[in-house]
Amino acid sequence: MKHYDIVIIGGGPAGLTAAISARNTHPDKKIALIRKEKIALIPCGIPYVFGTLEKIEDDILPDAPLEKNNVDLIIDEVIGSKDNTVILKSREEISFDKCVLATGSKPSVPSIPGIDKDRVWFVKKDIEYLKYMKESLNDAEKIVVIGGGFIGVELSDELSKKGKKITIIEMQDSLLPAAMDKEFGDMVIDIMREKGIKVLCNTRVKEITGVKSADGVILENNDHLEADAVIVCAGYKPNLDIAKMFNVEVDDKFGIKVDEYLRTSRDGIFAVGDCARKRCCFTGDYTEIMLASTAMAHGRLVGSNLYDIKVVKGFPGTCGTFSTKIGNTAFGVAGLTEKQAQKIGVNYVVGYNETVDRHPGKLPGASKVYTKLIYSRYSHILLGAQVRGGDSVGEMINIYSVIIQNKMTDMEIDSMQIGTHPLLTSSPIVYPVINATVDAILKWYR
Amino acid sequence: MKHYDIVIIGGGPAGLTAAISARNTHPDKKIALIRKEKIALIPCGIPYVFGTLEKIEDDILPDAPLEKNNVDLIIDEVIGSKDNTVILKSREEISFDKCVLATGSKPSVPSIPGIDKDRVWFVKKDIEYLKYMKESLNDAEKIVVIGGGFIGVELSDELSKKGKKITIIEMQDSLLPAAMDKEFGDMVIDIMREKGIKVLCNTRVKEITGVKSADGVILENNDHLEADAVIVCAGYKPNLDIAKMFNVEVDDKFGIKVDEYLRTSRDGIFAVGDCARKRCCFTGDYTEIMLASTAMAHGRLVGSNLYDIKVVKGFPGTCGTFSTKIGNTAFGVAGLTEKQAQKIGVNYVVGYNETVDRHPGKLPGASKVYTKLIYSRYSHILLGAQVRGGDSVGEMINIYSVIIQNKMTDMEIDSMQIGTHPLLTSSPIVYPVINATVDAILKWYR
Repeated sequence: MKHYDIVIIGGGPAGLTAAISARNTHPDKKIALIRKEKIALIPCGIPYVFGTLEKIEDDILPDAPLEKNNVDLIIDEVIGSKDNTVILKSREEISFDKCVLATGSKPSVPSIPGIDKDRVWFVKKDIEYLKYMKESLNDAEKIVVIGGGFIGVELSDELSKKGKKITIIEMQDSLLPAAMDKEFGDMVIDIMREKGIKVLCNTRVKEITGVKSADGVILENNDHLEADAVIVCAGYKPNLDIAKMFNVEVDDKFGIKVDEYLRTSRDGIFAVGDCARKRCCFTGDYTEIMLASTAMAHGRLVGSNLYDIKVVKGFPGTCGTFSTKIGNTAFGVAGLTEKQAQKIGVNYVVGYNETVDRHPGKLPGASKVYTKLIYSRYSHILLGAQVRGGDSVGEMINIYSVIIQNKMTDMEIDSMQIGTHPLLTSSPIVYPVINATVDAILKWYR
Repeated sequence: MKHYDIVIIGGGPAGLTAAISARNTHPDKKIALIRKEKIALIPCGIPYVFGTLEKIEDDILPDAPLEKNNVDLIIDEVIGSKDNTVILKSREEISFDKCVLATGSKPSVPSIPGIDKDRVWFVKKDIEYLKYMKESLNDAEKIVVIGGGFIGVELSDELSKKGKKITIIEMQDSLLPAAMDKEFGDMVIDIMREKGIKVLCNTRVKEITGVKSADGVILENNDHLEADAVIVCAGYKPNLDIAKMFNVEVDDKFGIKVDEYLRTSRDGIFAVGDCARKRCCFTGDYTEIMLASTAMAHGRLVGSNLYDIKVVKGFPGTCGTFSTKIGNTAFGVAGLTEKQAQKIGVNYVVGYNETVDRHPGKLPGASKVYTKLIYSRYSHILLGAQVRGGDSVGEMINIYSVIIQNKMTDMEIDSMQIGTHPLLTSSPIVYPVINATVDAILKWYR
């Protein structure tokens, strides 16, 4: 029986980051990463293999960091466990001192009659499946996408670049409803419609029609939409199969039960990323949010803390930082939306700002930037930020993420130093982080 | 005699921001802004009127925010002061309760023989002068730029777009020597040279030649360079003329003496921006750094605190955050460089990272990002960041600015949540803020 000091199960970004972090902190330990897939993909890049990227192989998560960090890569499937041992499909057994479960998530399957027909697709993180799906979609003209979250919207955007006729069906009142306030979701709807994508909100699919293969969907109002393919983007749920083999305590909805340091109910076994149960950083409630921003923080933290707590966790729970680009417009969100603030009963003030991200605005590359900030009215700390604008939103949302994680107040932000440049940012006089804050201050101030 | 509750002298970004902030905090006060120039310019945009922007009028700082905020704009020149009264060139006198000096800076004039000849230009923030300069440069083929700081480099970049043959002469060993470490300055040299701009470092100008008009420069080694125009970009010094009329205490080198709340030696009189003396946030020493990031923080702080301290200052001194774009490459700096850390005797560790700002790197718009971080070896807080990359560096440097202002440690950054997206940022696995930090951690850790 082989022995490794540290075994990581799962080769997605959380597992990979845990492996690198483990090596950085423990230069002398023997480390292995066990992964089912011959080739790992960049999960966030998957929608782009259907449009912008030529082939799926352009979205590969490279193995070079594992080699460089002297982490043994074992391509095999975990089929069982006893004590501190992993049993592999190849019948090999590997013992470990410390184990990190990074088994990720799998697509949710809503209970819609006909969902198991051919030509009904899910966005799985599996290169062979995706190759087959992409090839099969080549012949499809009309595509129905069920679910208007990130994956549904990004995928629709990409497929529309290939000339497909897309209809997105979303149960809630706007696109990206779990992630953004309605005014931002409605901006996404406008962008989708400009591209010729049909968007049906407040709409449910009653049935997927077709004999063996899907040929359309019937909506709750009995309208029938024809489709050559149906893609289900109804979210993801934690992949708990291996956790159950390990007999660690799990919560079927939210994931593997972990403490603040991602330690499971079993000594020496950790869980990171989509498969680990997470809390909202504002309420402490469990949350179904699955984001790379959280998974990466998990991976780095656990890699450092496998043998003792070296890195004291700075910020409890997920603050939900992410960004996306729809058409030519970037969106970023960090912390609470107004909808979430209302739901959890926060007394808040909203600050708005609209400006351009170059100064003067006649300089090339200028895009409009629209900002909405949620402040605690009495504690004065920033609770959440939503931004729409040009590509610089991708980093701008991380300014907010750092501000939120430092519990900065409106007054601290008001006296903060921020760099600006004509060719790169908004004018210092209308800089959105500051000016949306001032707008919020004025609302409680007067 | 007219009376205003609040009088702001100077219409640049610091004065404008002070006026808006004063109005926000004091809705019922009578506020005036006195400015010599009929039209105010965006200072950071001035280099771009010589290339990218068609005309100088494209770089105007609009007066609309003053109107919108009910601030009276008085175009006149301050020629004297007695008690709490300003005497204007028009002979009008205006009394005030509170006064903010925002008189900015003017070009330094190095003592080079011949510097007062015709066709020797300075980059003044004066629309009439700049119009005349731009027109006159139309005929110039060969231009010598004395000084390789920001303005010299940005202006050379712009003028080279118009086909001018430029030579930059810099006394120190690389470009932007006050702002960046040599490796970054050398990257700027490479970009300049690729554009056909000559760069002479470690070089001084001994004399500007020509009968009445400049026709060249003689260097210390007696080489003679021909030139149809000479542009002097040797930095700026605080404009203290009006401060002296007000009898507030000044420091001729560093500016108007102020306390942490920008209060001058005279009760009720404040100074903001380039004309106010500033301290380095790490040493408390006075610094000649003049940046919009500091000036804006000044303006906002003073506008709020004119009658009492409402906004307690969060961060003492300037942390020197800025960005620029040279050719197609953006540069950003916040906090201390390695050179500065050495000079002030800090025990530091350097973390490096090089990656691309999209993931996978095959996605459109990907640029290389090179990051250098300076950490305190024992206090573990981030002291400084230098970044080179694509346009997103403009906002990325503000992430560092917020981190530095929050005195975050390497361990806090290691467990921080950061949003990433294929089309907008680096991969979460190699995200430069985190990975350059991990590189620094590894250096003290092992």
